Amino acid sequence: MEKLWFGSDYQEGCDPSILRALEATNYDKTPGYGLDPVCERAKAKIRAACRAEDAEAWFLSGGTQTNATVIAGALRGFEAVIAAQTGHIHGHEAGAIELGGHKVLTLPQQDGKLAAATLQGFLSAYFADKNLAHTVQPRMVYLSQPTEYGTLYSRQELAQISDICRAFGLLLYVDGARLAYALGCPANDVTLPDMAQLCDIFYIGGTKCGALLGEAIVARPGLLPHFFTVIKQHGGLLAKGRVLGLQFDCLFEGDRYVALGRRANALAARLRKTLLEKGYTLTVPSPTNQIFVTVDNERLARLGERVVYGFWEQADENHTVIRLATSWATTDEEIAALEALL
Amino acid sequence: MEKLWFGSDYQEGCDPSILRALEATNYDKTPGYGLDPVCERAKAKIRAACRAEDAEAWFLSGGTQTNATVIAGALRGFEAVIAAQTGHIHGHEAGAIELGGHKVLTLPQQDGKLAAATLQGFLSAYFADKNLAHTVQPRMVYLSQPTEYGTLYSRQELAQISDICRAFGLLLYVDGARLAYALGCPANDVTLPDMAQLCDIFYIGGTKCGALLGEAIVARPGLLPHFFTVIKQHGGLLAKGRVLGLQFDCLFEGDRYVALGRRANALAARLRKTLLEKGYTLTVPSPTNQIFVTVDNERLARLGERVVYGFWEQADENHTVIRLATSWATTDEEIAALEALL
Amino acid sequence: MEKLWFGSDYQEGCDPSILRALEATNYDKTPGYGLDPVCERAKAKIRAACRAEDAEAWFLSGGTQTNATVIAGALRGFEAVIAAQTGHIHGHEAGAIELGGHKVLTLPQQDGKLAAATLQGFLSAYFADKNLAHTVQPRMVYLSQPTEYGTLYSRQELAQISDICRAFGLLLYVDGARLAYALGCPANDVTLPDMAQLCDIFYIGGTKCGALLGEAIVARPGLLPHFFTVIKQHGGLLAKGRVLGLQFDCLFEGDRYVALGRRANALAARLRKTLLEKGYTLTVPSPTNQIFVTVDNERLARLGERVVYGFWEQADENHTVIRLATSWATTDEEIAALEALL
Amino acid sequence: MEKLWFGSDYQEGCDPSILRALEATNYDKTPGYGLDPVCERAKAKIRAACRAEDAEAWFLSGGTQTNATVIAGALRGFEAVIAAQTGHIHGHEAGAIELGGHKVLTLPQQDGKLAAATLQGFLSAYFADKNLAHTVQPRMVYLSQPTEYGTLYSRQELAQISDICRAFGLLLYVDGARLAYALGCPANDVTLPDMAQLCDIFYIGGTKCGALLGEAIVARPGLLPHFFTVIKQHGGLLAKGRVLGLQFDCLFEGDRYVALGRRANALAARLRKTLLEKGYTLTVPSPTNQIFVTVDNERLARLGERVVYGFWEQADENHTVIRLATSWATTDEEIAALEALL
Repeated sequence: MEKLWFGSDYQEGCDPSILRALEATNYDKTPGYGLDPVCERAKAKIRAACRAEDAEAWFLSGGTQTNATVIAGALRGFEAVIAAQTGHIHGHEAGAIELGGHKVLTLPQQDGKLAAATLQGFLSAYFADKNLAHTVQPRMVYLSQPTEYGTLYSRQELAQISDICRAFGLLLYVDGARLAYALGCPANDVTLPDMAQLCDIFYIGGTKCGALLGEAIVARPGLLPHFFTVIKQHGGLLAKGRVLGLQFDCLFEGDRYVALGRRANALAARLRKTLLEKGYTLTVPSPTNQIFVTVDNERLARLGERVVYGFWEQADENHTVIRLATSWATTDEEIAALEALL
Repeated sequence: MEKLWFGSDYQEGCDPSILRALEATNYDKTPGYGLDPVCERAKAKIRAACRAEDAEAWFLSGGTQTNATVIAGALRGFEAVIAAQTGHIHGHEAGAIELGGHKVLTLPQQDGKLAAATLQGFLSAYFADKNLAHTVQPRMVYLSQPTEYGTLYSRQELAQISDICRAFGLLLYVDGARLAYALGCPANDVTLPDMAQLCDIFYIGGTKCGALLGEAIVARPGLLPHFFTVIKQHGGLLAKGRVLGLQFDCLFEGDRYVALGRRANALAARLRKTLLEKGYTLTVPSPTNQIFVTVDNERLARLGERVVYGFWEQADENHTVIRLATSWATTDEEIAALEALL
Repeated sequence: MEKLWFGSDYQEGCDPSILRALEATNYDKTPGYGLDPVCERAKAKIRAACRAEDAEAWFLSGGTQTNATVIAGALRGFEAVIAAQTGHIHGHEAGAIELGGHKVLTLPQQDGKLAAATLQGFLSAYFADKNLAHTVQPRMVYLSQPTEYGTLYSRQELAQISDICRAFGLLLYVDGARLAYALGCPANDVTLPDMAQLCDIFYIGGTKCGALLGEAIVARPGLLPHFFTVIKQHGGLLAKGRVLGLQFDCLFEGDRYVALGRRANALAARLRKTLLEKGYTLTVPSPTNQIFVTVDNERLARLGERVVYGFWEQADENHTVIRLATSWATTDEEIAALEALL
Repeated sequence: MEKLWFGSDYQEGCDPSILRALEATNYDKTPGYGLDPVCERAKAKIRAACRAEDAEAWFLSGGTQTNATVIAGALRGFEAVIAAQTGHIHGHEAGAIELGGHKVLTLPQQDGKLAAATLQGFLSAYFADKNLAHTVQPRMVYLSQPTEYGTLYSRQELAQISDICRAFGLLLYVDGARLAYALGCPANDVTLPDMAQLCDIFYIGGTKCGALLGEAIVARPGLLPHFFTVIKQHGGLLAKGRVLGLQFDCLFEGDRYVALGRRANALAARLRKTLLEKGYTLTVPSPTNQIFVTVDNERLARLGERVVYGFWEQADENHTVIRLATSWATTDEEIAALEALL
């Protein structure tokens, strides 16, 4: 019997509009390395959606690559990046940031979120330290929206953090690997123009939001000098760069990117409701497409026979935290089938 | 009037079989990060084509990324790689190898090729140097097949270099960004099994040989420890890794990969003949899909109005070396139109 | 009025025997780069003191340089080092380890010490994590003896950690920047031969133990391949390498190195007793030459007019942790004068 | 019978004034890390000698460390340094510059010198290349004064190179590992104030010019941001930083630094004259303390029984290039003894 797949939001291909566009443009001839009209059009759509006409936009292939390349491009060798203890760059990128020579300074978090007060306290103490010159110099704050636990920063929270960064001369960089699920969430009040205004650099995730691969960086002008060369140097420049531009051209056609997140969120909300009704314990109050559930190991063993889930971490000897994720491809039937199983 | 595009072999999309496969499998659900059955099947086909059942195979996105990741994965921090002065890793990868901490030691070349005698002489002198411990330790020889100038190593030449590498304890690594055009060339006598036998590591190019993106690394077991982690650390791990595997699954279906190179080579041969008849000077005697022509600048200005070509280098004040390239997508009609223009 | 200097153990020159030896050998002619008889003799003394006749020994200039070079020399690019949250490599080396591309994984500590149980629990969970391949691979445990807080690992504690390291295939590396103060401490039961037996690599501190500069690395054979070249590559190779060897030759003449620590510890013990009698709060129960005291800020302001102390950290709004350190150069008179002030 | 030592200028200790100063100040108490009055006084003397009152000055331990740290401190990750093929950073520093992520672009040289015309031609072509964005961005020119072959740039030559650098927006950095031998050479017309005016950064060598260890960096303000931290991060910060300052305080007392070079040069000139009279072939017309002689291997074997010389390179099957060097410590008697042997 076939399993039900809820392991991640990258287990299928892509939004069908992308395949149609690949087909339609396959024999078009364009310059390489992203210097083509398709990439230009996609960038124009992104700038428009962000209401940031002078923003720089760049396309890369994946999240770790994007984080490492942005950090390398924006920081000097002696500068460091601050992240929540649960930040993706800290624990799940195989040391990519450190490979680039930069230290990740970690701070306590709550449900994946870094509190403005925590950041303020840390920075005040750090820059007051009489041994400051013997340590790395913080230059960037890294957040994720939604966070690694599917939670959201409110507009007010993001604005507070943005203010703190500016007061201390730090760049604010937001990892939007799953940004569609934030933008398409009823609980969210941070728009793309808000992001462009409050952040110095952020990226709009494609891979986990309906593309085959691809992430779109949006940056204030001047923060990423010689970034074309930096991308090439970090192995992120595709000869057929239009493959990335084309996908964002599709995803930012009309409301598609947000709609895709909205639909996945709705299915996740339905599933979350069922889980609570059946007595499951939600580990984190996430309003987006990722559901974290703490399950006792016996129950999990039975569930695992029928459902592909994401292992998150061992909660204790007898319980495991798992992730159930919906995506652009999840169907009502799959949700119903999973509900029947729970 | 539309231009004729001969600027590179990455100006179009991909072999149509790839689009069909993307379409057919779009809703299939698979694990991420290349741990899926499609990647496994593609690897099996590659191993079979190489007659190397125990070889390791890995998929990455582009050439610079592949070179930097392989070199980082195979070398210790104090080790260096040897390349021809014209080697892609030396001049055209924005310092990606040095970013990884490794020095590229360059040797003289002829038509893009490193001669066995040159290598032997260099290594003998290097390891005899009484100041050896004060310098980087050579650990790898980097070649390209075809070379950056479209020329080919013969089986005998490759075997000689392989013997020298083994005698000095060096790894032989071959960059096959355009390997299809070598394998599909009448002048070539180096087969994939030869590559697997003579090289320690090599890669089979996808991006410039009919894929949207992707390169396939083939390595003797044990040379790339923890390479999954190394790939992730270098930003080369795609969440939807199957996008790469699927393309090699298509390209290695039957004879497709080699046939694609054979056809582009035949069109290039026809074009080369016409160029010679019309009195053009071929810069390098390349038998594959890239043609290097030295053109006087006036003639080039006129040509440039109708033809997209690749700028290679300034030959002198009045002459420029340009590249004309054919690909899987070049048509007989395009060749005829270009011939009419020349 | 002159101040009393208790700010650190590196505020004076060096043990007078070193100056005499520099004078006596100034016109001797020797090969450069540490390949001289003085370095050889110093290494022989160190091997004898460690009862490790086959150990490799190397001399470097300072602690951060030694840590960064040893870690770079022993680890592959994807490997990480584990340290206590208070480990010197984590917070006080300006990101030198990350500059070399390696992540520092931090664990909770008590009085500067990493507990064996903490390490065991962390490693068990880490290697059981199903996402292990997506993270850095731990390969080394870093400890300090004495710790950054002047505390000591007992022989049993060190043996337990050593056992855990070997069970998990990790190297144990001990930073002995102030090792003289451990070896010369009545509370200590870890000898140099114990260190050589239980650790894979450790270093014997010179700079903070009576030398002008210099640290001596002791390593099991084979763990630091091509280390001469690695040292040069990291900027740690002195042309006049004998300057380092000569100092260890002096410090390891007879009992000098340990005696020097013993004397400074005795003065610190006397000072510690006085501090307790006068009602000061010792922050950490350190038995070696560093005393950490939590002082209220008003009292500290007065003290600061007469005494040079080391700022450690802000304890709270009204209290500061300071360090008072004795060294080979501290005199009974200085201690008496400080006692009078307290 | 004892050998005659002419292998290098780092085979003895140091100028006796340094030992006297170490002795006189041994019990002085000062802050660590170079933040002491001795370092300040030495910096003031250096600024005065350079007539550059606003110059930044820093002390490091050795040449490779200085080069790597300056380049890391002045360049962004995507920037490269240009050097003569014979530049020390290219062939004799074990890849230290590449370890820091920077490519060394090499140019042809004559007797160790880079010609202004060569540089001008290279830069014009490089920045005109249409593929410029795919390559590293040159940002610094590295020269040595004297060069690795003991030759000298004239004031005019240095001014031309300085002009080219400024025209192209490049920094000019000069490695003065043996600067005393340039400054103390009758053939030299480049003064310290010239250096400070024409270069952006240079260093005044100590190790090979009479110090035990130490190099003094002189830089225009603002080019090395957060350099204290950069030095620490690169392992170059000595806890007892005064050890370096003290030596430059001695060497820059009156005319000592230049006088020391002058004396060694005079002895070298005498030796050079004798070599020519006896029919030896000077490999390079060096006017400073290093003499490069091409010797047939039989003669060399005999010489080697009595004289310690520096191996430079194999000239051909039957001849070797060796280096004979004088230093602050060379005596008239040693020269006479060597002359008798030749």
